[in-house]
Amino acid sequence: MGRILDKITSPEKVKELSNVELEVLAGEIREFLIDSVSKTGGHLASNLGVVELTISLFKSFNLEKDKIVWDVGHQSYIHKILTGRKDKFNELRKYNGLSGFPKRCESKYDCFDTGHSSTSISAALGMARARDIKKEDREIIAVIGDGALTGGMALEALNDVGFNKTKMIVILNDNQMSISQNVGGLSTHLNNLRMAPKYNKLKSNINETLKSSKAGTKVASYISRFKDSIKQFVVPSMLFEDMGLKYIGPINGHDIQTMTEVLEKAKKIDEPVIIHVVTSKGKGYDLAEKNPNKFHGVSPFDLESGEAYIPSSKTYSKAFGDAMIELARSNEDIVAITAAMPDGTGLKDYAKEFPKRFFDVGIAEAHATTLAAGLASANLRPVFAVYSTFLQRAFDQLIHDVCIQNMPVVFAIDRAGLVGEDGETHQGIFDLSYLSQIPNMTVLAPKHLDEIKVMLKWALSQDGPVALRFPRGADCCKEILPLTKIEYGKWEKLISGEKIAIIAVGKMLQHALLAKDILESRGINPTIINATFVKPLDTNMIQELVNDGYNIATIEDNITNGGFGSYVLMKLNELGFKNKFKSLGFNDKFIPQGDVNLLYKENKLDPEGIAESIIELNK
Amino acid sequence: MGRILDKITSPEKVKELSNVELEVLAGEIREFLIDSVSKTGGHLASNLGVVELTISLFKSFNLEKDKIVWDVGHQSYIHKILTGRKDKFNELRKYNGLSGFPKRCESKYDCFDTGHSSTSISAALGMARARDIKKEDREIIAVIGDGALTGGMALEALNDVGFNKTKMIVILNDNQMSISQNVGGLSTHLNNLRMAPKYNKLKSNINETLKSSKAGTKVASYISRFKDSIKQFVVPSMLFEDMGLKYIGPINGHDIQTMTEVLEKAKKIDEPVIIHVVTSKGKGYDLAEKNPNKFHGVSPFDLESGEAYIPSSKTYSKAFGDAMIELARSNEDIVAITAAMPDGTGLKDYAKEFPKRFFDVGIAEAHATTLAAGLASANLRPVFAVYSTFLQRAFDQLIHDVCIQNMPVVFAIDRAGLVGEDGETHQGIFDLSYLSQIPNMTVLAPKHLDEIKVMLKWALSQDGPVALRFPRGADCCKEILPLTKIEYGKWEKLISGEKIAIIAVGKMLQHALLAKDILESRGINPTIINATFVKPLDTNMIQELVNDGYNIATIEDNITNGGFGSYVLMKLNELGFKNKFKSLGFNDKFIPQGDVNLLYKENKLDPEGIAESIIELNK
Repeated sequence: MGRILDKITSPEKVKELSNVELEVLAGEIREFLIDSVSKTGGHLASNLGVVELTISLFKSFNLEKDKIVWDVGHQSYIHKILTGRKDKFNELRKYNGLSGFPKRCESKYDCFDTGHSSTSISAALGMARARDIKKEDREIIAVIGDGALTGGMALEALNDVGFNKTKMIVILNDNQMSISQNVGGLSTHLNNLRMAPKYNKLKSNINETLKSSKAGTKVASYISRFKDSIKQFVVPSMLFEDMGLKYIGPINGHDIQTMTEVLEKAKKIDEPVIIHVVTSKGKGYDLAEKNPNKFHGVSPFDLESGEAYIPSSKTYSKAFGDAMIELARSNEDIVAITAAMPDGTGLKDYAKEFPKRFFDVGIAEAHATTLAAGLASANLRPVFAVYSTFLQRAFDQLIHDVCIQNMPVVFAIDRAGLVGEDGETHQGIFDLSYLSQIPNMTVLAPKHLDEIKVMLKWALSQDGPVALRFPRGADCCKEILPLTKIEYGKWEKLISGEKIAIIAVGKMLQHALLAKDILESRGINPTIINATFVKPLDTNMIQELVNDGYNIATIEDNITNGGFGSYVLMKLNELGFKNKFKSLGFNDKFIPQGDVNLLYKENKLDPEGIAESIIELNK
Repeated sequence: MGRILDKITSPEKVKELSNVELEVLAGEIREFLIDSVSKTGGHLASNLGVVELTISLFKSFNLEKDKIVWDVGHQSYIHKILTGRKDKFNELRKYNGLSGFPKRCESKYDCFDTGHSSTSISAALGMARARDIKKEDREIIAVIGDGALTGGMALEALNDVGFNKTKMIVILNDNQMSISQNVGGLSTHLNNLRMAPKYNKLKSNINETLKSSKAGTKVASYISRFKDSIKQFVVPSMLFEDMGLKYIGPINGHDIQTMTEVLEKAKKIDEPVIIHVVTSKGKGYDLAEKNPNKFHGVSPFDLESGEAYIPSSKTYSKAFGDAMIELARSNEDIVAITAAMPDGTGLKDYAKEFPKRFFDVGIAEAHATTLAAGLASANLRPVFAVYSTFLQRAFDQLIHDVCIQNMPVVFAIDRAGLVGEDGETHQGIFDLSYLSQIPNMTVLAPKHLDEIKVMLKWALSQDGPVALRFPRGADCCKEILPLTKIEYGKWEKLISGEKIAIIAVGKMLQHALLAKDILESRGINPTIINATFVKPLDTNMIQELVNDGYNIATIEDNITNGGFGSYVLMKLNELGFKNKFKSLGFNDKFIPQGDVNLLYKENKLDPEGIAESIIELNK
């Protein structure tokens, strides 16, 4: 016999399956997913939630011409399985392996790269408008979660779609949460839709309605009837209708037959349609269903216990969260903001202790940043905890609302530098550049996690904005004493050597220290400096290095474009430096997925690579 | 007698006036505004539209404790007049004069600086939450236009407000347009609200309703009755109600009595309320009312004819618009996108000729950018025309949706460099830094407007993203021949001199040429290079300069933080350069309002300042 799954060698094979076979396929996919992700790690719960939805889309649409844009993209595993990539799942999220997100370069069935939230409607709308201009025949579908819908650009896109009535289908995959619990007026609205008494009746009613239609009926009158009859059975969402989209739903997202029927009809509607599908994150794996947050993005884990095989060393996020609690206990003005990441940013315990001084604003970094500015303007001390890559979303608000007014907002920037397996879209390698260019911004980087508290405390005492950036994961540089006092713009000279000075930022200090060991074996004794402040620079220390005739190298886990090194060089130039200088970091390119240590090595930011560059510089 | 206006020495004086006197005051303010702005220039139409609204707010609220956040902020003139700044209007938008926007540093009545659109609800929500935490007694009001409501962050904020039910008042100032005609499903929705038959009946009904209430009634039951009775008379906006806000409206925004009555009651509701106020932009000045776009932001103008006193020299925007039309005629794949700026970006005529290949997405730069990426993914050639300062809103989308996928999107970036009178929030001095740091991005700057077409054509032939950045206003460098061919990464050596080379970007080339004249009189004959490409650099030409032993200066009308000069210096360092280098641009600070030539002078970017720096460098 063999599995049906193994017979799906191309997307159209799905279309040939009967409803019963589709159900079997769903079970096989689920089994494959749980087994595979338990070995490789990856996003599990969100993919388990969209098994039937993905199958229904493949059944109803022609992937050779139709296009599906998966918002956020980490729920595209089933899409990948069904488009010939099943056998690559053992290399999921590995260097040169299968991406955890849709990738145009990976498959012709991936029409748009995603990773950050809330982009799908905009991208799909572009495709739909291109289709109309080119008079092509294809369906365009955006699949977006209820959490992603709280992102401003998704709402901007809905506003545009609804006004211009571009034909496309938006699937609202409502799993009642984004990464963490969903928030916002929209989620309340969706909850009302789900909870309305009519919902339970919907499934059978909608089936009857759809069955009563005849294939031969003229499309126009048919659609009109279809829409009217749907409306009778669904709880009307005036919100979406008011924005100009036809609303259908809610539909049980684990019922393939109903979904394929609804999709078949929806594509005949010559207007934008939003189909509200209700799914369960983690569906089919008890442990994940009960605790979808834990299984959102996971390391390899034990199938029965669900326990991950990772060392439980304290993370930067945890250190930050602990510091927040301690500081907030003695300073009532401290408030914290997250954009749908209370767990990831380490704020969960803080939120429990200080619920009234904690704001989860949804996936809305732009709003979060200006909200923080508003709080600061009213004399509170807001801390916005956010991942480096997501703060990119608030670049203008950093300039316009925080820095121009010199508002004392603290940015606790987690996942700065490489994050590894999530790849290009998630590497936090731009923050030093985009933060340093803004006047009034101060940027610090702890050399290990025991410095987070003293830095946070210092940041909260300043009169203007301060960004604290720290890496993903567990501690480094544990062998060195933490700073116990922060002095504005002052660096820390850890080792006095000769001829060559290495100035390292944050986590890169550990690499510098390891490089020193290698260098010493080659007879080179570098001075090692910890650049506690990325901005402003420690001009006095730089002046000393110039006076003492050092060659200088900087190391940052950031892009060298407009990075820390370029500021040091500008300062050196100003001071008349004539020796050799080298800025080490990521050169002008995006950094793909992979183990972070491997990526450091590839980019010569591992201790050996750094030592090599220093030896070259010292020649 | 004298004017009532002259007696308003502080905000509370407004509260002492009778309804009749308030009407007289409105007339006096309008007269003052038209007269004053005709002499200084400034935002006229939007301010004429909110005369009664502002008066009503001052009548109903206590500005000594209550806070009003004016979204976009250019409609805050009446607020300024009524808070003791009337006599400063002769210096409106001048260097060191009165700002055209709210400024915390200007008055204690300005609680938050605004300038860019859609920030007010976020900022006000921050203030409201601070009030609740600190258990203070004050009202928080955000006044936001219907155009600004299409900005994603405003919708993110509404979502947050509606969910958490923070008490605040959002005034939706619906003037049926943003800067240009409004677009989006939301605007259709608002239009439906305005056009519903019940609207005309509203005014009298609502007055009766409000009058029927007795002051002595218990507040709780009173509010409940009030809300119910309001609901009977207004067209329900399920959209706002679905998001969790109480909706009241639409109200005639030129009827002070009704508005003050509604505001009085609204502040007693212990939940977020959105009050939908309908106003006419340009109200009370015929010419402005008929043509509000023209009078949105104006130069000084003749009161009777409405004609501005400016030379009608061709602008960069016009040259861009003309080039778009010409290129689009022969290339059907070209499409254009604007974020509510068809006039300002010069796309108006293009839009008329190619309505199906033109997309105005509302004030939604993030969506616009990803929409462009979606269009490009489907093999069209999108051009997003946008102001430098507003593209900051799409920084993440530039990285995530355009550059990671290397999508061939063209960014036509207008108002790059100084814009002058709009001040800090609008100066386009960050783009070279934020664009250059992104891998795969190419950045060009025309030296005069006759180069726009050839550059645009070249950009449209590339396989990846290209940004073309050009300044506000009329042409410069007219005396030099335009490039007729663009070669990737190649600069243009205009004048071969000796010892010192000046590399200038875009408009700064003219300053460099004028500086040369000064330098020649001092016996210095600089080489002058036009940096056609900001990214990538012309490495060959830089290598030549290094070989030939030049001192080098770069000039850019951009912040020096991570700017063009820093990239040139990094390259020079790589090539072993040991001579002198200086990067000229705006140092690490925001640039205030004022005449651009004065600002250049202040920042030593005028020809004299540049010459001075070169002489210093050459010592």
